[in-house]
Amino acid sequence: MNYREESLKKHAEWRGKIEITPRVEVDSREKLSLAYTPGVAEPCLAIQKDLEKSFELTRRWNTVAVITDGTAILGLGDIGPEAGMPVMEGKCALFKAFGGVDAVPLCLRTKDPEEIVRTIELLSGSFGGINLEDIAAPRCFGIERRLIEDLDIPVFHDDQHGTAIVVAAALLNALKLVGKKMEHVRVVINGAGAAGVAIAEFLLKMKVGDVVLCDRQGILDERDGRLPPAQREIALKTNGERRRGLLSGAMKGADAFIGVSGPDCVTKEMVRSMARDAVVFACANPTPEISREDALEAGAAVVGTGSSEKPNQINNVLVFPGLFRGALDVRAKKIDFGMMYAASQAIASCVEEEELGRGYILPYAYDMRAHEAVARAVAAAARASGVAKI
Amino acid sequence: MNYREESLKKHAEWRGKIEITPRVEVDSREKLSLAYTPGVAEPCLAIQKDLEKSFELTRRWNTVAVITDGTAILGLGDIGPEAGMPVMEGKCALFKAFGGVDAVPLCLRTKDPEEIVRTIELLSGSFGGINLEDIAAPRCFGIERRLIEDLDIPVFHDDQHGTAIVVAAALLNALKLVGKKMEHVRVVINGAGAAGVAIAEFLLKMKVGDVVLCDRQGILDERDGRLPPAQREIALKTNGERRRGLLSGAMKGADAFIGVSGPDCVTKEMVRSMARDAVVFACANPTPEISREDALEAGAAVVGTGSSEKPNQINNVLVFPGLFRGALDVRAKKIDFGMMYAASQAIASCVEEEELGRGYILPYAYDMRAHEAVARAVAAAARASGVAKI
Repeated sequence: MNYREESLKKHAEWRGKIEITPRVEVDSREKLSLAYTPGVAEPCLAIQKDLEKSFELTRRWNTVAVITDGTAILGLGDIGPEAGMPVMEGKCALFKAFGGVDAVPLCLRTKDPEEIVRTIELLSGSFGGINLEDIAAPRCFGIERRLIEDLDIPVFHDDQHGTAIVVAAALLNALKLVGKKMEHVRVVINGAGAAGVAIAEFLLKMKVGDVVLCDRQGILDERDGRLPPAQREIALKTNGERRRGLLSGAMKGADAFIGVSGPDCVTKEMVRSMARDAVVFACANPTPEISREDALEAGAAVVGTGSSEKPNQINNVLVFPGLFRGALDVRAKKIDFGMMYAASQAIASCVEEEELGRGYILPYAYDMRAHEAVARAVAAAARASGVAKI
Repeated sequence: MNYREESLKKHAEWRGKIEITPRVEVDSREKLSLAYTPGVAEPCLAIQKDLEKSFELTRRWNTVAVITDGTAILGLGDIGPEAGMPVMEGKCALFKAFGGVDAVPLCLRTKDPEEIVRTIELLSGSFGGINLEDIAAPRCFGIERRLIEDLDIPVFHDDQHGTAIVVAAALLNALKLVGKKMEHVRVVINGAGAAGVAIAEFLLKMKVGDVVLCDRQGILDERDGRLPPAQREIALKTNGERRRGLLSGAMKGADAFIGVSGPDCVTKEMVRSMARDAVVFACANPTPEISREDALEAGAAVVGTGSSEKPNQINNVLVFPGLFRGALDVRAKKIDFGMMYAASQAIASCVEEEELGRGYILPYAYDMRAHEAVARAVAAAARASGVAKI
């Protein structure tokens, strides 16, 4: 099927992938008086007295804002807030379908980090969580950091951490399959934007042997004065052997390659130069860094891509619905590494050892068991680390 | 029934009066590929090429933001954004139930007009209309004016114009009942806030004989240097006979009284001093300016209040669902007086001449015929005045 052409047709039929539905009846004087005036004054006053009651008397406990500035939509780049809406609506539909979360898509007409932060602060009293979405690096780093500091509800940039969580889950299972240990492997990440930096951070916290992060210029060099702060910081923490040079050099002898970059930047030769039983995750969308077929031909043991039409799709839809479900259920103040790691483990655990194979390292995106497992694991981790309020 | 106590209980059961519902299925690889990646890229690109397509390929065509700063919630005053949410959620439930409109409640954590305007501008690309709600005067006037200038979607402060429209509808039918003509009557309005000023403006445009606007100090005096700009402006346009003094003086010989002020500020004596067949709309909530019983005892011919438990409830729920339905249906750029007047006429016309009586001057809030009539009338008026885009 030509998904893109068919999707355009479908979107014109749907005219919106989500809608707002009343949960109360208002078709009589009595019902109106309870749901609206005069009755509604009482819950208002109860919340005024105790703001926490907004989580009990309104939908705040279950509602997340999905917010973008439209600057990094899919692989399409900066296409603007209105054009980003189909993705945000889709995300909100998935939030409900897989996590039971009410998610509101908001696309902002600004790229100014100050304005984005301030706008979200002003809106935050209406939501139980904030899912930042498709905001370009490096702005996304500062925006997320400041919001996490300022707000007492979870803030999560899905392109960073959602991607890191699902990639880590895929890596956990791929290494299990080829019989390598996390702490012994060297992982090369290509793409030092929002996703690449977050994956590197995440793998370091998971005690991966070494991580080497590359961008278009090759291996990130912490001595490079032109590096933005986030990239310099991660350059200092990764690349334990202080390698220099191009991606092709970095990949020699590496155990795993993770691409969150662009189309066709990895050759068969480069895959051949990797260690035995190499793992290749070529996640660029819609065209991967190297095709699944070429990577397998070049000897990769396990290959994953971003595509829904190939085995081993690595997509953060496995993460965000369950992650927010779990966080909302225990009214977590934030989403810490423990919760993210628990999500990653939960996703990996959904594939039983006997099911695990080169073509099945992750559960399917629409596998409800996975979403429920993530929610349970995240809630338990939040309770364990003390960020759960209930 | 004790509505307020019962309502608190119900709100704790409901835990939210609205929710977000998917309109697409995502339970297979194929469906996910159409609603989300990779298919979704195509509608994104189509909107990037032509922003107007956001009204065809996303829910924008049917979605309104209900936005407050929490400063004038019901008669409760400035109770803050979180505490305002039960009213906003209720409003959104009514939007869908009576107008088929998807409405998103957003309560802002600021009272700064600059910030409110800017925030709404930044959000406006996600919505087909903006319903401002319960923002205190005088800030609401400037906020609405600036947004109407800046945005190319309808902006409507319901507390001002929604109230004016339903009060005007009630007055149309009350005067029909007592056999007086709009252009011959003198109307006294008590309360010179958002609603009072808007009602005065509206009645002037409807060619009411004279309007006298009062606040706590009595009749607005255009020579009073302490009057804020909006009040000074309306003081200059009203009170053709340049009356001075207190509300009690203003009411002597008046044909109609419209209260949008506070409890118990009108006595039976004051009603007795009005012209024969006087009309009294005591709309203060929850306690009216004078009770229905007292007003009738004092000789008023027609009495309306804001209460759902008495005949002739004057509530703008009769207005906003149909008004936005009509405006969205023709993609109106704004809501002009013609559309508002058409709404008022449509509401009044829902009460047939033979049904019209002292206890039945307006259709019931849950009368779908009324909402549909408003929508049709508003759409037709928008087409006639050229503000309709389709």
